[in-house]
Amino acid sequence: MRRTLFVFKGAYPPLGFAEGEDIRMNFASDNWTGAARQVLDAVAAANANIYPAYGGDELTGAVEARFAEIFDRDVAVFFVATGGAANGLALSSLSPRYGMILCHEQAHVQMDECAGPEFFTGGAKLVSVPGSCGKVTPDAIAHTLSGYPERPPHGAPAATLSITQASECGTVYTADEVSALSACAHGAGMKVHMDGARFANAVAALGCAPADITWRAGVDVLSFGGTKNGCLAAEAVVFFDPSAVSDFAFLRKRAGHLISKSWFIAAQFDAYLGDGLWLRLAKRANDAAQRLSSGLAALDGVRVWYPTQVNEVFVSFPAGLDEHLRAAGAHFYPWVTPGDPANGTMNRLICSFLTTDAEIDAFIDLVRAQI
Amino acid sequence: MRRTLFVFKGAYPPLGFAEGEDIRMNFASDNWTGAARQVLDAVAAANANIYPAYGGDELTGAVEARFAEIFDRDVAVFFVATGGAANGLALSSLSPRYGMILCHEQAHVQMDECAGPEFFTGGAKLVSVPGSCGKVTPDAIAHTLSGYPERPPHGAPAATLSITQASECGTVYTADEVSALSACAHGAGMKVHMDGARFANAVAALGCAPADITWRAGVDVLSFGGTKNGCLAAEAVVFFDPSAVSDFAFLRKRAGHLISKSWFIAAQFDAYLGDGLWLRLAKRANDAAQRLSSGLAALDGVRVWYPTQVNEVFVSFPAGLDEHLRAAGAHFYPWVTPGDPANGTMNRLICSFLTTDAEIDAFIDLVRAQI
Amino acid sequence: MRRTLFVFKGAYPPLGFAEGEDIRMNFASDNWTGAARQVLDAVAAANANIYPAYGGDELTGAVEARFAEIFDRDVAVFFVATGGAANGLALSSLSPRYGMILCHEQAHVQMDECAGPEFFTGGAKLVSVPGSCGKVTPDAIAHTLSGYPERPPHGAPAATLSITQASECGTVYTADEVSALSACAHGAGMKVHMDGARFANAVAALGCAPADITWRAGVDVLSFGGTKNGCLAAEAVVFFDPSAVSDFAFLRKRAGHLISKSWFIAAQFDAYLGDGLWLRLAKRANDAAQRLSSGLAALDGVRVWYPTQVNEVFVSFPAGLDEHLRAAGAHFYPWVTPGDPANGTMNRLICSFLTTDAEIDAFIDLVRAQI
Amino acid sequence: MRRTLFVFKGAYPPLGFAEGEDIRMNFASDNWTGAARQVLDAVAAANANIYPAYGGDELTGAVEARFAEIFDRDVAVFFVATGGAANGLALSSLSPRYGMILCHEQAHVQMDECAGPEFFTGGAKLVSVPGSCGKVTPDAIAHTLSGYPERPPHGAPAATLSITQASECGTVYTADEVSALSACAHGAGMKVHMDGARFANAVAALGCAPADITWRAGVDVLSFGGTKNGCLAAEAVVFFDPSAVSDFAFLRKRAGHLISKSWFIAAQFDAYLGDGLWLRLAKRANDAAQRLSSGLAALDGVRVWYPTQVNEVFVSFPAGLDEHLRAAGAHFYPWVTPGDPANGTMNRLICSFLTTDAEIDAFIDLVRAQI
Repeated sequence: MRRTLFVFKGAYPPLGFAEGEDIRMNFASDNWTGAARQVLDAVAAANANIYPAYGGDELTGAVEARFAEIFDRDVAVFFVATGGAANGLALSSLSPRYGMILCHEQAHVQMDECAGPEFFTGGAKLVSVPGSCGKVTPDAIAHTLSGYPERPPHGAPAATLSITQASECGTVYTADEVSALSACAHGAGMKVHMDGARFANAVAALGCAPADITWRAGVDVLSFGGTKNGCLAAEAVVFFDPSAVSDFAFLRKRAGHLISKSWFIAAQFDAYLGDGLWLRLAKRANDAAQRLSSGLAALDGVRVWYPTQVNEVFVSFPAGLDEHLRAAGAHFYPWVTPGDPANGTMNRLICSFLTTDAEIDAFIDLVRAQI
Repeated sequence: MRRTLFVFKGAYPPLGFAEGEDIRMNFASDNWTGAARQVLDAVAAANANIYPAYGGDELTGAVEARFAEIFDRDVAVFFVATGGAANGLALSSLSPRYGMILCHEQAHVQMDECAGPEFFTGGAKLVSVPGSCGKVTPDAIAHTLSGYPERPPHGAPAATLSITQASECGTVYTADEVSALSACAHGAGMKVHMDGARFANAVAALGCAPADITWRAGVDVLSFGGTKNGCLAAEAVVFFDPSAVSDFAFLRKRAGHLISKSWFIAAQFDAYLGDGLWLRLAKRANDAAQRLSSGLAALDGVRVWYPTQVNEVFVSFPAGLDEHLRAAGAHFYPWVTPGDPANGTMNRLICSFLTTDAEIDAFIDLVRAQI
Repeated sequence: MRRTLFVFKGAYPPLGFAEGEDIRMNFASDNWTGAARQVLDAVAAANANIYPAYGGDELTGAVEARFAEIFDRDVAVFFVATGGAANGLALSSLSPRYGMILCHEQAHVQMDECAGPEFFTGGAKLVSVPGSCGKVTPDAIAHTLSGYPERPPHGAPAATLSITQASECGTVYTADEVSALSACAHGAGMKVHMDGARFANAVAALGCAPADITWRAGVDVLSFGGTKNGCLAAEAVVFFDPSAVSDFAFLRKRAGHLISKSWFIAAQFDAYLGDGLWLRLAKRANDAAQRLSSGLAALDGVRVWYPTQVNEVFVSFPAGLDEHLRAAGAHFYPWVTPGDPANGTMNRLICSFLTTDAEIDAFIDLVRAQI
Repeated sequence: MRRTLFVFKGAYPPLGFAEGEDIRMNFASDNWTGAARQVLDAVAAANANIYPAYGGDELTGAVEARFAEIFDRDVAVFFVATGGAANGLALSSLSPRYGMILCHEQAHVQMDECAGPEFFTGGAKLVSVPGSCGKVTPDAIAHTLSGYPERPPHGAPAATLSITQASECGTVYTADEVSALSACAHGAGMKVHMDGARFANAVAALGCAPADITWRAGVDVLSFGGTKNGCLAAEAVVFFDPSAVSDFAFLRKRAGHLISKSWFIAAQFDAYLGDGLWLRLAKRANDAAQRLSSGLAALDGVRVWYPTQVNEVFVSFPAGLDEHLRAAGAHFYPWVTPGDPANGTMNRLICSFLTTDAEIDAFIDLVRAQI
């Protein structure tokens, strides 16, 4: 009873990946990369201790303090093991069961969590907002809201704006952009959630303080991701107003997301956040994507979509080339989303902190040779 | 502790309706009209009997048989008291808890049920499909689906297409149009739900057999409305494949929608469906809307939107006129929805089987006098 | 596709009820009885008007005021069409999604609503409390709670006590008993819900003011039933603290329980509550049950269980007699619940305001003749 | 914003645990112990690879095959990170949204998951079954069901029996006992779920084949625990009938329980299941509990409750002693559950594979010295 590898069906080619194959030219996902050495070492070191379960350990306490430091503010932090859990739980805390949650039409919460936010919230309504390069704008939000005038109790009331930093298209919101969005959202009575599955990449790209693009810019709750950038399974829901936590601990527990050996996530974050590791890893991934992006953009017939601001490159190759590249051992997924003008030809290439220059150059050479 | 009248907030004017006022020029909603005399008489007549509760009565059986006759096919019928219940329960039967439900962006299930479908289904995802005049097309559906490629278990799988007959914009789908939509939906693995809150108006407008625009055209489940067209509170969920009913009786019961004195709904339908009353009432409302629509369209500066095919007229008056009309005693709501080019100026005027020619003519005169 | 009459399966006999049969000796349910004439007349009278939908009508306002009068206090009232909806919605407003709801082990919310409270609340946990004659006591509640010590976030926190007045066993709580239960519940951080599907019968039996057994005794929210006692479909959720209503209007709407022609329920209540009709009807049903109960209790070999305090009589007949009685045209259900010592032999006989002395005497004669 | 250590409130003393304290005499929970060395090494070794995410890796495939070997049967296996997720998801797959789930009144699913099963299932009803020593019997189940006769759609239909192996009281079901329970459940139309958070301890105690107490004894789905017995965070839902998996992959995904770096759980199981490690670790914990149990039972005034069959010892100390023991550095929780005759005096002491004889003897000496 072998479950099959997650593949795109229909017009989408399976990844050219055979069991046992040595994976190189891996641009499939930053989820394909293991943990950073320091993170793994921290888990091993912590494992020697006897720790109270469910977050009663001192390591969890220490990491919570570190979060407060990093964000320059008292925060309430809750660990979970997946980004889907972080997002779903955060939204279930911010939105009433029948609230309207606005997000970009390509957002992970809308596209990739199998209606998880609807499940966690108990039935909230996700409404897609269009926007170029994976980003929403205050105008687009205002326009969307104008189509859903308040008419209680008939319409689902606007409850939450969820933005993704970095976005699904590998772009980032500046601090000013986040502030403008938050102002727009708060003005309409909405809370602001930030899906930060690639928050580290965004901070590294912007060179800003984490606070600048979160609470100082009006964000209420952040899904802070570690898994894609050097952890094994470590995500955190960060409330910037600890008094707004409400019953989050209950919501997390009933959903099976309170990890018993909570120190295991704390240990990962301890190493990840310590000594700036998280930003160094993110910078490495971002830099790799820059090298890949500019290398590809220089080739005739290759089109790079969206500015390459973090660790993702979106690219169309000449017709038929995708298959050749995959056959030659490169790994990357097609990128298909609503509202995308290049649906059917676009690919998403992701770099991680482990992506090597050699890997990138080999791939670029491979493409060049086929053109 | 008086609950306030349902009003549009923000830019939208409250209805100019004072308590105790005699309402005339009522174009606010077909829900503002009482029941037809025959329907009320049937309830009174049935009330003399002792009937087993919960649908065990002979009247319920007789009405079920009548539904089978009307649709020229064996059907399974479940009564409920509201359209929101009929839609939510039907969708919860057709869609898995995480399924994707496609509907027109202005559909009642998307706009006006306070995230009811998400609640009833346990978290399904409603995805808006744009389309002119309140109608979706196979092309629009295919385009929407193309943005949500199958990638289990990440994407919510496409589960159900919900179409509204007559549509929110007062237009109807022909039998051929329904067939094409069903073929498109079934081809993509989706079931087809029809929200027939104004099904009678659609049948009366099309002059077709009820079967022609439902099961013969591929519809799986119909929300059959009676309330807006002469009943007190009578809606039915009609399964055209009785073997697909599954656990609907449990879903209805747990949601508090199994009416104990079920004969009370049966009696309404008995009169409503008997002797063609439902179609006569609908025709009267449709004809009234035609009179209103053509009368208004002939006036300078008045714009009628969408073809007037059933009992709804969408109209923009010259700037400032709305308020004068309301102040003069006319009742109608502004019409604001996503994707509507005329948001901010459009009004919805609805006629019922009780709307009189005098009422219509008085209103047209009132408008004419102000231009 | 005839749905079958609701029958007990397994060891339980179907009701001896043939289609078309004239039903007499009807002790099956107060739901089998139609509406009182005055109630029906009120609906007919109201039907002549054009009323704003969704509760914006003056009749709804007037009935809300009447509720305030009857309860001698400002209240917030929400109409629904079924008792299951009233209970489920009330509990969903009082309990967090993961809260613990205590109720008698035979309570309707636990036994007869197909897990409706779990659905409406989004997953609250119902915990059964044993107790004789259908009633819970402060001791039993304290004992139950002692087994579920607070240990957040692992245990579901105690949220609500739901008591039934009159109880499932046809008994009533005195004002003092309700007060003691409320004190116990509030002391443990719980809200108090009262399922008053037969509230009228309880008030009539106790001869008290409605306030005495509700808010003056600590009840927070009441499901006020009208359907079983002379209405067609009229139930109300009554908040005794209007400031605690919170988002109830949204919860009701998304569940499909906001009746569009809300005046139709208001009209029923207007007649039902006017001029003391509700208490006269309830007294008639109670008196009938007294006559039935004492008549049966006087017969050898017949055992009447529980004090007959409202309109329900629980009785065991000599072995084999049940079938004879049913064959002779009497209608009543067996009564089987958890924790009942007489499971397997007990029957529930219910009287309504329409039950005649002749009917009762005929039944008693029938039983006597068989002994 | 330091979250507090999980403590019992009210009459229950907090654990005598200070931050930074060296924990010895740890009998608080097997969740307080870290992972076995071999498990940690396996994670580190796997981390060197690039693996497809979401279970597409070869390690996941290899572990699935190992599960099939261990259970001597083709199985479908789904990894999750917590026992609450395994249980909730398994139950949501086995029970309709309104189904009745029977479990022991002290079961983890009933007592310790904050109404998680109700959440995952979308509203199923958990019904407590009493039983001595944490175990249910066919008689108790039959008796419970007799109080909930089938009366669709009013009563929630009996859907699933959930049993815990080893039980919450540290006892085990023999293969024959499981078979008898399954026969009873299946006969009543229910599926059988086994919560195997301490499945390894049960198998080690019984000395049986894993198949003997699961599918050969009629179990449909098993929550197979690794976390409490030497893993970091590794649980598996095992379907013994792979064709009954249905849409489990979607249910897991939408709940945020599809771990992206799935190989991380696979690696733990690979070491855990390889070479019999899981059973050796469990035996060590079981043996430690035996030593502790017999040592304590020999002391005057100390009462050991329930047979000590796995790694849990339930014990009452003379009045006042609990506090002294905790003050002296011993860690253990009070044990309070519904239906427990010794509520208020009982403690639960848990051993793990790391518990040393010295630790046990020191504790026994400590007790002895106080008597």
